[in-house]
Amino acid sequence: MAKTVYIAGLGLIGASMALGIKRDHPDYEILGYNRSQASRDIALKEGMIDRATDDFASFAPLADIIVLSLPIKQTIAFIKELANLDLKEGVIISDAGSTKSAIVDTAEQYLAGKSVRFVGAHPMAGSHKTGAASADVNLFENAYYIFTPSSLTSPDTLEEMKDLLSGLHARFIEIDAKEHDRVTSQISHFPHILASSLMEQTAVYAQEHEMARRFAAGGFRDMTRIAESEPGMWTSILLSNRETILERIEDFKERLDEVGRAISKGDEEQIWNFFNQAREQRQAMKIHKRGGVDSSYDLYVDVPDEEDVILRILELLRGTSLVNIHINEENREDIHGILQISFKNAQDLERAEHLITENTDYTVVIK
Amino acid sequence: MAKTVYIAGLGLIGASMALGIKRDHPDYEILGYNRSQASRDIALKEGMIDRATDDFASFAPLADIIVLSLPIKQTIAFIKELANLDLKEGVIISDAGSTKSAIVDTAEQYLAGKSVRFVGAHPMAGSHKTGAASADVNLFENAYYIFTPSSLTSPDTLEEMKDLLSGLHARFIEIDAKEHDRVTSQISHFPHILASSLMEQTAVYAQEHEMARRFAAGGFRDMTRIAESEPGMWTSILLSNRETILERIEDFKERLDEVGRAISKGDEEQIWNFFNQAREQRQAMKIHKRGGVDSSYDLYVDVPDEEDVILRILELLRGTSLVNIHINEENREDIHGILQISFKNAQDLERAEHLITENTDYTVVIK
Repeated sequence: MAKTVYIAGLGLIGASMALGIKRDHPDYEILGYNRSQASRDIALKEGMIDRATDDFASFAPLADIIVLSLPIKQTIAFIKELANLDLKEGVIISDAGSTKSAIVDTAEQYLAGKSVRFVGAHPMAGSHKTGAASADVNLFENAYYIFTPSSLTSPDTLEEMKDLLSGLHARFIEIDAKEHDRVTSQISHFPHILASSLMEQTAVYAQEHEMARRFAAGGFRDMTRIAESEPGMWTSILLSNRETILERIEDFKERLDEVGRAISKGDEEQIWNFFNQAREQRQAMKIHKRGGVDSSYDLYVDVPDEEDVILRILELLRGTSLVNIHINEENREDIHGILQISFKNAQDLERAEHLITENTDYTVVIK
Repeated sequence: MAKTVYIAGLGLIGASMALGIKRDHPDYEILGYNRSQASRDIALKEGMIDRATDDFASFAPLADIIVLSLPIKQTIAFIKELANLDLKEGVIISDAGSTKSAIVDTAEQYLAGKSVRFVGAHPMAGSHKTGAASADVNLFENAYYIFTPSSLTSPDTLEEMKDLLSGLHARFIEIDAKEHDRVTSQISHFPHILASSLMEQTAVYAQEHEMARRFAAGGFRDMTRIAESEPGMWTSILLSNRETILERIEDFKERLDEVGRAISKGDEEQIWNFFNQAREQRQAMKIHKRGGVDSSYDLYVDVPDEEDVILRILELLRGTSLVNIHINEENREDIHGILQISFKNAQDLERAEHLITENTDYTVVIK
């Protein structure tokens, strides 16, 4: 049976979601809310949505499923607004916020007792591009699409959502909202604080020690890359996950104290163990480049520093999809570096290894 | 006049230095010390050095210039040993250690009053490769070669060193030893502690929150990359730059406290300013990929996700030297991503911009 889906927020995520829903459900009617007209016009013109509004409440009663694809604060405000509207019996409400507890708690508080279903969600995908104009039906491919079920989530809620979103080709996964926020505080929220703090500390230090600007190299560059993230989004994330992040900060300060004590004492063994353990832990941890790609298939080629050497290798690999290509830095005080090529799957990786080994003298390593 | 140069330590740095000295001074005699036989044999066989020994003291009296290219601890031990040897009148002694104060202080203490000249040095170059077998005459090209003059450094000392090392094609720069250690503590030593601490914190957290392993993505990967560095080297660095690093740790803890207080209070404006300031500071800071390359010339191309698109661009750029090529990650919660190509100089950059703009529809940005 054709459903009516209401997507509030036609940014990159919302508009890409509309495209993904259309792919598997061309008969569904998709309604769209967006405050600014530009994205509404594009979404209509490109056929991503069937009807558009700038009055959120007006379309809500028409929908079988409502997806809020908005900043955290606005998501919370709209959930409260939905509690006062006359919605369809059994409507499903979901969202796309980066933190989950604050949103799920609001839903539990305001929607309980009503004939609505709710499931929090966090699609771990994105791009540097923004807005409906950048919508991409493949944006969520192989990305984690995290659901955080709560008391308003009946078993059929998840089934209906997965069916609705089947065209996204994402990896659906379920996790408790609080646990989601704990995990992301450790691997994402707190690291952003570290990166920005290191950047600020260095900027202040460089005022009196100007060579700091000059000598900063690869390691520092990597450590501060995410300090360039959009401030508004990260402010909302910190404010909606306060206790967990504060707890990570306190824990980290104790770790710094421990390293500091080892340095004060000149405890060589303890410092060596600290560095060695971290090294082993990182080597053991398979870290994905993109939240959501379950594994990447990397090949390392030890290439000479010659003109057109990359071109020569890419010519050999013509027709193979590359996920990424990168020449690693050479720096004694940092890590490694040779030509690294990442593929989407094991077959492409094997094919590339074969082609390069057969046609060049370069050493090829797969790890 | 042909000189006799004694290089102690035939690892990557020492052996590459030998090659660089030979390039501009083919008539100099180069003596080499190395504890293990393998690197001695390679260095002799490849003609990097003229004579080799495993007895450091034996060749020291023959040298006009002695370069210690060894771990920090051994550098300090050998300076003490040199103080007791009957060296040539006016011999120059230098080194290649990553921290400078401890080494320079030792030289000042043990070599003062003797007829020797000393200048501490830190060549900011390296590779993931090690040993004499990986020696590369171009290893130091455009890299900073930092000298830390002290009371044992007469003006002619630096002139003679720069003449000796002219074939390295490095960028010579002078800085006070203590200032060197302050600057590198901020942009290198302390960031290594941060990276390893974050890795350990996450590994411990992941024992109880296993999704942390699963959801870790690009930002976390970047923040922990240097946690894979060689533990022994970093232990020596920390131990030889204790006070400065401890001071950076304390300062950083105060910064974490300040962010923590803003989070506790829910001070949206302060948190936004924190992130925004760090973002602006990083955008303003030109960070080099490699310690030593004074500037990189980067071009960004907004490419579609199509097969062979990189190949097509590299074909346009055939014959242009690339320093690096990288597809930036796409992740909403991190930073950007488009094809980034780095060139050696402004001419290559302009040529590339022209070629890509003329021959494709892709947007090209230079920052």
